[in-house]
Amino acid sequence: MPIVTVTRRLRFNAAHRVHNPSLSDAENTALFGKCNNPNWHGHNYTLEVSVSGAIDAVSGYVVDLGALRDVVEREVIGQLDHRNLNLDVEFLRGVNPTSENLVVAIWRVLQPHVRPGRLTKLRLWETENNYVDYEGL
Amino acid sequence: MPIVTVTRRLRFNAAHRVHNPSLSDAENTALFGKCNNPNWHGHNYTLEVSVSGAIDAVSGYVVDLGALRDVVEREVIGQLDHRNLNLDVEFLRGVNPTSENLVVAIWRVLQPHVRPGRLTKLRLWETENNYVDYEGL
Amino acid sequence: MPIVTVTRRLRFNAAHRVHNPSLSDAENTALFGKCNNPNWHGHNYTLEVSVSGAIDAVSGYVVDLGALRDVVEREVIGQLDHRNLNLDVEFLRGVNPTSENLVVAIWRVLQPHVRPGRLTKLRLWETENNYVDYEGL
Amino acid sequence: MPIVTVTRRLRFNAAHRVHNPSLSDAENTALFGKCNNPNWHGHNYTLEVSVSGAIDAVSGYVVDLGALRDVVEREVIGQLDHRNLNLDVEFLRGVNPTSENLVVAIWRVLQPHVRPGRLTKLRLWETENNYVDYEGL
Amino acid sequence: MPIVTVTRRLRFNAAHRVHNPSLSDAENTALFGKCNNPNWHGHNYTLEVSVSGAIDAVSGYVVDLGALRDVVEREVIGQLDHRNLNLDVEFLRGVNPTSENLVVAIWRVLQPHVRPGRLTKLRLWETENNYVDYEGL
Amino acid sequence: MPIVTVTRRLRFNAAHRVHNPSLSDAENTALFGKCNNPNWHGHNYTLEVSVSGAIDAVSGYVVDLGALRDVVEREVIGQLDHRNLNLDVEFLRGVNPTSENLVVAIWRVLQPHVRPGRLTKLRLWETENNYVDYEGL
Repeated sequence: MPIVTVTRRLRFNAAHRVHNPSLSDAENTALFGKCNNPNWHGHNYTLEVSVSGAIDAVSGYVVDLGALRDVVEREVIGQLDHRNLNLDVEFLRGVNPTSENLVVAIWRVLQPHVRPGRLTKLRLWETENNYVDYEGL
Repeated sequence: MPIVTVTRRLRFNAAHRVHNPSLSDAENTALFGKCNNPNWHGHNYTLEVSVSGAIDAVSGYVVDLGALRDVVEREVIGQLDHRNLNLDVEFLRGVNPTSENLVVAIWRVLQPHVRPGRLTKLRLWETENNYVDYEGL
Repeated sequence: MPIVTVTRRLRFNAAHRVHNPSLSDAENTALFGKCNNPNWHGHNYTLEVSVSGAIDAVSGYVVDLGALRDVVEREVIGQLDHRNLNLDVEFLRGVNPTSENLVVAIWRVLQPHVRPGRLTKLRLWETENNYVDYEGL
Repeated sequence: MPIVTVTRRLRFNAAHRVHNPSLSDAENTALFGKCNNPNWHGHNYTLEVSVSGAIDAVSGYVVDLGALRDVVEREVIGQLDHRNLNLDVEFLRGVNPTSENLVVAIWRVLQPHVRPGRLTKLRLWETENNYVDYEGL
Repeated sequence: MPIVTVTRRLRFNAAHRVHNPSLSDAENTALFGKCNNPNWHGHNYTLEVSVSGAIDAVSGYVVDLGALRDVVEREVIGQLDHRNLNLDVEFLRGVNPTSENLVVAIWRVLQPHVRPGRLTKLRLWETENNYVDYEGL
Repeated sequence: MPIVTVTRRLRFNAAHRVHNPSLSDAENTALFGKCNNPNWHGHNYTLEVSVSGAIDAVSGYVVDLGALRDVVEREVIGQLDHRNLNLDVEFLRGVNPTSENLVVAIWRVLQPHVRPGRLTKLRLWETENNYVDYEGL
């Protein structure tokens, strides 16, 4: 059967600050500028979840997108939406929530729950002008 | 000369919570749900600023969009971008930062600085699925 | 209190054909061309619902957008999504489902359920290149 | 019959410079900056054409959008697409092609050809961050 | 010469239902839910066609995008636009029109006609929130 | 450390004509049609710059996107924005400015300045319906 990649886009709105707690406040300000605002700022994030696999002969699907959406909602979006990424999220404890660190943390949470098919890419949009891609490497 | 309306879109990223300090925590939770998260959440806001007037015979402009952008950056975006709308913004002191209250507050700050032409509409997008319009009434 | 208009966007996917049953098949083909295909075609529709009113002093809202979304989902989207607009929808019985007729029919169904505030505009996108607006006139 | 407004979006790509030939080069540079580059720059323009009227009882249309598109293609897009707005367009002779002047000139060319219904609005996007509206006033 | 990939986006509007004729109606309903509606639903599809190759030294093109568009219009869009994907399309006879099956069928129809250059990817958007990719494997 | 790709989108507006000076005018017209207009046309280009690398343990970044933006603005956007791509740009001397040739020329200018991380992809959008990708091969 042909190998196809299916992608589902989901959204969440969250507050964060880019901050490394092992650095001084002055170092954080020098490194991260306005993104380090101690009172937080926030974004409308868009997450694209890509799953690859053979097309199932019975369903014609690689994966049921409704079921995939439910998994991503439960494991990821439900934890992140309308939350503070530095304070509120169990799977981000101790993580400086840059987009790069976020996408890797989301992969680790989500990857074991994706089946059938294989999680092959996550794309996380922080604004309409910047996004990060992670393929599990 | 014909009357034309010109619109400039600008963006800012901010944290907020929807919260009425004159209500109890339980009342705030009942009224605002997850939007009341005490640890904040945030958005990529888009602001559309519309100015109407006659076309200037020399420039062919209603208003120089570069000059308009500079005014909006200085008076509005520079105050709001990468900030906490409940804590950090002088012109939002005491304002519950719903989109409705934000757009009215932005109008009051911006309106005296718009010239030539007349500020006729503000549109504020909070997410790609909801926005508010205010025409100064 | 200032008068603000709030807008919520919602989506539905539906099949339809543009067809006037009081005309002959030849007349329908001449008038509507490929949009009259007897085996149907379809669209991803986007509906923008605009409600105007004074900002409530307690909530800071014109209308709770979550409650508005629930009303539109129940009265409109739930009837139209993944349906055939010529065959499946009670409130479209006998209606030739052009965008113009759709937006007026949706208004009539939705208008009595909008409160607080007043339904002031519906915009219905049929494709990314065409949409219709109705203000209840 | 209800009054509905239908809108069709069309695109054209063109070169231009913002330039007032009755001013000196130094005055043009001072007024228009980089938009006055003598070697031109260009844009992907999007034009939204809005026509209002009663819904026709036979067709269910305010205006046949295919026929409207053909008129706009012939009268406007065909004149502007892949052209230089300062040099190549008969109906822009002597016009400084700011967005404001463009939208008024397009209105004058297009308005007599719109029927049934009445041309009620043109929106011209020059970039994704600025657009002008004209309602024939 | 450098190897570049060029991509052209095209659109079509179609009706379909997700349905496996070798299953019972009850099994189809259980598997596909509202997507199995016997009266059909529909979508505005967007197809992205990617062709890779060396840049031609004379034209500066990998492939003339106008010629590529004409081929895709003739072989694919002209067969699918304003059609029923289960009933009307020769190259989809017997195919359950999930996005996965569609993208593979489109590849098989289109691939022999792409030259110069090599068809390296198709992306098919069914809604703004889900798409499938196929690279011919 | 995980390998992540970060992408920044930037925009520029420019005039150009597709033209091979080693061909006759008639050959240029035959090959390039309206894109060969001697009076130019233009576009709103969008450039996506992708940089891949390990996440830095101190900053949580692959590359500081603000610093990356500054480099791209200085080396590329500042040279191209509001310019004529055939006449005004040092690094495009003698280049027929098709999207394919542009993306390769931009790569050669930009690649030596990207660090930390490695430039792994450029995507250049000429219109919303066509774009080219280059990965340095």
